[in-house]
Order: sequence, then C-alpha cells, then structure tokens
Amino acid sequence: MYGVTVRDHMMIAHSFRGEVFGPAQRLHGATYVVDATFRRAALDADSIVVDIGRATEELRAVLAELSYRNLDEEEAFAGANTTTEALARVVADRLAERVHAGALGESARGVDGLVVTLHESHVAWASYERPL
Amino acid sequence: MYGVTVRDHMMIAHSFRGEVFGPAQRLHGATYVVDATFRRAALDADSIVVDIGRATEELRAVLAELSYRNLDEEEAFAGANTTTEALARVVADRLAERVHAGALGESARGVDGLVVTLHESHVAWASYERPL
Amino acid sequence: MYGVTVRDHMMIAHSFRGEVFGPAQRLHGATYVVDATFRRAALDADSIVVDIGRATEELRAVLAELSYRNLDEEEAFAGANTTTEALARVVADRLAERVHAGALGESARGVDGLVVTLHESHVAWASYERPL
Amino acid sequence: MYGVTVRDHMMIAHSFRGEVFGPAQRLHGATYVVDATFRRAALDADSIVVDIGRATEELRAVLAELSYRNLDEEEAFAGANTTTEALARVVADRLAERVHAGALGESARGVDGLVVTLHESHVAWASYERPL
Amino acid sequence: MYGVTVRDHMMIAHSFRGEVFGPAQRLHGATYVVDATFRRAALDADSIVVDIGRATEELRAVLAELSYRNLDEEEAFAGANTTTEALARVVADRLAERVHAGALGESARGVDGLVVTLHESHVAWASYERPL
Amino acid sequence: MYGVTVRDHMMIAHSFRGEVFGPAQRLHGATYVVDATFRRAALDADSIVVDIGRATEELRAVLAELSYRNLDEEEAFAGANTTTEALARVVADRLAERVHAGALGESARGVDGLVVTLHESHVAWASYERPL
Repeated sequence: MYGVTVRDHMMIAHSFRGEVFGPAQRLHGATYVVDATFRRAALDADSIVVDIGRATEELRAVLAELSYRNLDEEEAFAGANTTTEALARVVADRLAERVHAGALGESARGVDGLVVTLHESHVAWASYERPL
Repeated sequence: MYGVTVRDHMMIAHSFRGEVFGPAQRLHGATYVVDATFRRAALDADSIVVDIGRATEELRAVLAELSYRNLDEEEAFAGANTTTEALARVVADRLAERVHAGALGESARGVDGLVVTLHESHVAWASYERPL
Repeated sequence: MYGVTVRDHMMIAHSFRGEVFGPAQRLHGATYVVDATFRRAALDADSIVVDIGRATEELRAVLAELSYRNLDEEEAFAGANTTTEALARVVADRLAERVHAGALGESARGVDGLVVTLHESHVAWASYERPL
Repeated sequence: MYGVTVRDHMMIAHSFRGEVFGPAQRLHGATYVVDATFRRAALDADSIVVDIGRATEELRAVLAELSYRNLDEEEAFAGANTTTEALARVVADRLAERVHAGALGESARGVDGLVVTLHESHVAWASYERPL
Repeated sequence: MYGVTVRDHMMIAHSFRGEVFGPAQRLHGATYVVDATFRRAALDADSIVVDIGRATEELRAVLAELSYRNLDEEEAFAGANTTTEALARVVADRLAERVHAGALGESARGVDGLVVTLHESHVAWASYERPL
Repeated sequence: MYGVTVRDHMMIAHSFRGEVFGPAQRLHGATYVVDATFRRAALDADSIVVDIGRATEELRAVLAELSYRNLDEEEAFAGANTTTEALARVVADRLAERVHAGALGESARGVDGLVVTLHESHVAWASYERPL
C-alpha cells in the first residue's frame, strides 16, 4: 500500500459546549497544521498516488473555506462541537468529495482511502481515516 | 476511524543484557518522548475520542511512575531488557488499565485501541499497538 | 554565553485592524507554541542558568493569563493589534517581571536576557529579545 | 503489534516525464529523509524487534546505493519515474531483501512487515508498506 | 529586537568541485527547507515587523528562480560551488534587494537585518546573516 | 556572518546534587540531541564554513566519549553537576580543541565561533556559545 501526504494549515476561532472542556468553553482559537494522506494500492501510469501539486491545491481550497473564521458562526457547524477530531473528519469528507468530483484528475479516482491529521499544538493532534 | 494523540516525555537510566546491544550494555540513559494515541470508531456525545486534558493527565501519571529512575533497579523489570519497544508496551498496557478503571471517564470506555510510540532520539523510535 | 529554553503553548482568538492583514481582519484564532530562552554569561552554583522546572511553571503561568481567551476583549490589549511579534514581547516582558520579582529564585536574578519565540504555524514564527 | 523505526537521508538528482509534473520535468533534485519501520507481532529473545544499530546500518547501505547520484542515469530506473512513492517502494524492497538474506541477523527473520516513508520537504512525503 | 520568520522550500540539482566534497562531486540534488527571518528594532504602525503574507510571497518568488533547476547550468553560479552556506547568502541578498525595492511595502524599509537558513536534511543546515 | 550546523545525539545516565533538582537528584538519564554550529565571517576557497562530513565525524567523536556512560562515574565530571547547559559547554570546548588541533582541516582554523545546543526533550534545551 502506498501513501502520499501533503501539509498545510488553518487558523480558526471557536468555543466548546460541555463541562469536559473546562476553559475551552470560552471563545478561543487554534492553528491546525493539517496533514492529508492519500492511500492507494497501486501507482497510476505516471508512477504517482496523486499529483502532490494538485493535492496541495485541493487541501488549500478545503482549508480556505474554514480558515480565518469563527466556527461558532458557521452554519455548517450549528449545534456541533468543532473539536480537533470532528474537524479532521470534515476536512477528510470534503477532500473525498473533491476526489470523487474529479478535482485531482481522473487517475486520482483510483485512490483507496484518506487519512487527515490535525495538529493543534506540539503535544496534541487528532486524525480521521476513511475509505474513498 | 478516529484517533487522538497526546505527547509527554520521561527520562530514565538503564542498561541492556545481550551482545547485540554493544555499548548499550553499559549503564546509560534516555529521554523518551512518548506519544499515546487513542483510537475509536465513533465520537462520543461531546464529539471527542477522549478528553485531551484527561488523556494528558493519565499519560503523565503513567510516565511519572517510570521517570527519573534507574529501571535496572525497578522490581517490575527484574530480569527484563527495558528496550524502547518493550517500554512502549508497558506504557500502553498501563494506560489501558487506567481506561478500563474509568480514569478517563465513562465515555472513554468506548475507545477501541491504543498506540504508544517512544522516540529515543531524532533518528530512532518504537511503538506498540493493542486493542482495548 | 549560556541559554536555557522551555516550550509550552497557548490557544487564543483575536482579529486584526488594518488592510495589510487581509482575511485575518476577521475573528479567527491561533495556537502559539512558545519558546522562552533565558540567557546568562555564567552558570550559578548549581551549574544551571535557571531551574527548568521553575522556568516551565512560570512560562505556564504567563500563558495561562492569555490562553483560552478572545484577546479582542482583553483590557490589556485595547486598541492594539495582538500580532505574533507583539505577543512575543508581552510574554517576554511578563516573564521578565517574574524574574525580577524572584519567582524563579534568587539565583535567577543573574539572568542577562530573554528571547521569546511564538510559532503560529509550521511555516511562520516571531520572536522578541530583550535584556533583563 | 510492535514497530521500530530508524531514520537516515539521501540526496539525489532526477527529472520526471509527464505533463502532470510541470516544472519538475526539468532536472532538479531532492533530499529524502527516510524512515524505515520494521513491524513484528512479538519481540525476540532480546526483547527487540530488530537491533536499531544494525537496522541503521542496513538502511544506510541501501541509501548509499542511491545517494549522490543522478537517478536519470541509473540503469535500475531506466524508463521509470523515480517519484517519491516509487522510491519508497525501492527502498522497502531492497531492505526486505536484506532481511531475507540475514543481514539483520537470524532473529530479524521474524519481522512481519516494513513501512518506508520518504520526506521530500516539510510539506510533502510518501510511504510504501509491505509484508515481509 | 523583534524577528519574524517564514518558511518555504526549493528542490535543486547540482554538483561540487573540490576533493573535500567526496561523493558530492557527482551530480546529485537537495531539498532546501528555507527559513527567512526579518529583524527589526521596533514594530511598524500595524504592530508588525513585516506582513507575513507578503514575506511569504517574496520568499516564494526568490526560491522560484532557483527551484526545479540544475544549478550547474545557471549562469549566475558559473564557476561557483553552490554549497548550502553559499546559497543561504544568495537567498538573503535577493530578499534584501526586494525589500530595498519596496516589494514588502514602504514600512518594511524599516527592517534592520535578515537571516536565511537552508536545511539540507534533518541533520545539517546553514545560515547567512546580514544587515539590511 | 555564516553558520553551518550538524546534528547527532548521545544517551547518558547521571544524577544531580542540589534540592533545586527535585526527583532529578535520583539516578536517571537523557538522550541529548546535539546541534553544533560553526560560525565564520567569510567562506573558504571551497565556498564552505567547514566540511559538513568532517564536522559530523568530529561531533560524533566528541559524543562517543560521553555516550552510553553513567556520567556520575566519569572522572572528568567528579564533583560537578552535568546539567544540560554544563554539558553544552563541555561539547563546545572539546569541539574547539579539535578545530585548533586541525581535525577539521587547515581551512577550518578560520572558524570564528561555536554554538552547541543540547535538546533534552521536545520541551527543553540548552546552549553554549563561545568564540574560537
């Protein structure tokens, strides 16, 4: 099994509901350094999993829809806790839609799965893994 | 599948028995930067795998039992080589006990598995993965 | 010249005023991974610059006053842009006050200077350096 | 399941054929920081997956056959695109041969699988995973 | 003194002349992860050293003139060894020209100095520091 | 001013005397990831500060004299606390001796200064800087 990973980041504000979150119930923020891994059993005719340049562009496009925003005010997350693990899934699902829509090229339809990891600090990160 | 990882470290002394270890048969030491990953198929009602704060506390508690010690003199390791891979299992097993005992909260009983990685330097690390 | 550095982090929300900031004029947030370096010409009687444990505690205390907050609503920053470089100075100045107040111990009064670096992502960081 | 990883690097020149590669069709180069992970269900009699010293030596030997070369002129890669993912497989397959040949010792024949990751920059990497 | 750093990378091929370089006399290549630090005694009216967005763009522009090339065939480097330290100066000097030309905005003319660091691997890097 | 840095590591056991050290008064250990920076105002005839290969070898030789040892039993450190900052100086001074003795080649006598940084964990490190 092959994998190709590209990295980018986003900077957002949000707050959490639930006592478990302690001081993070207050409005605060995070930089998420985001790693998106494309997994594939066999390489395509160009000997790649996906084009790193196009994967980088699509990841940037997905993150641009979230970055420099207060997620508490985004309709897509109304009533939801935008935890690191929940956001990892959002990014993975949106990337998957783009692969299905052909944004990474015809060959990228051969991708088998995705893993998205969001690093919230040097001591904590979360990931979500799904088939494509 | 979701994962949440927290990082901490411990500093220990030890020596190894066996010719394969060369100069590491002498008493020496290591800083282990430790990553503990909690894996789970679905998020809990708060949209988390485990609370990062509590996970950090439990990992710190497990490492405090090992850190600033000469492992050669710890009864728990009598007759055993405390290699990086063996210690990764010790940390994972002790964390699993704490999850089972409810130390990470009732919801954390839904955790499916653990991966513990010990970085012994910038060029070598070891991990142990187990179901919960 | 000796230096000792400890690392911690804080997670904040804020917005900037000024066209130069583009989308960062919107409310967003950041994780700052913070490195505080204590510089000193000669070691103290214990062969240290400062005690790493106490330095870590004082840095944590300084960051706790800022973390999990919306800096736009903090009186201390009224009318100011809390850029990465400006916050680096805030952290350095507050650490310096603590050193002067004896929070790091009598010996730490021998510290000559401080450097504080705030990493806002894997591709951007800022620092502020000052004498003590 | 246990894993042990060692890290080294190689520096090569190459070019790619195919429009998807854009400017990377020109002769250019890369530093690949290479992580080789050895996976194993149970530890051997010395409580190790493989000896980290020997694993480091064998990885260095595999990389020495590739480093400081223009891969476009290497017979082994005639007509092939030496992409990061393709090279990850080359390194993994050559390491596997060495394990099978006994270069890591008799005990290392118990290794179950290999993962090789090549980091081409701070924002892109690729991996190949195979059973042994 | 304040500093702001932005990071990007370039991928090049080259060879060195001189016995000291051993196997690096052959055509090979490197990824350079490049950190450019802008130093300044006082912040500007927006509370910044330079705009991180513009600094990132200018660094990218400087690196684009070098990346995906065989430096042995670039006229600018005819007869010169393009070592990591020599390239650090090239990048710093070209960035300095851009600052002087106003590419980072009028306020950036207040920048006092530059430091450029090129990381050639996880175990070696070089830097060049100059006033502006 | 130019700088070239090489990285290696050592693994040692030791204990500290003094109440300030708390649990670190017990025998424990550390991995030190060591960065040695050679600083120089102008490059030599080969366009280098020092040869990275030779610098790596000399750093390895200095660290080999310390690694896989209990520093409490080394005569060189009798009665001394081998703190991270104190060891940074030991490594810097021993490297300086090697430069003066010609171990890095005649040209390396033009080196102006050294900085040695010892990383004891992902959250703490110390350095020592000296002229040559």
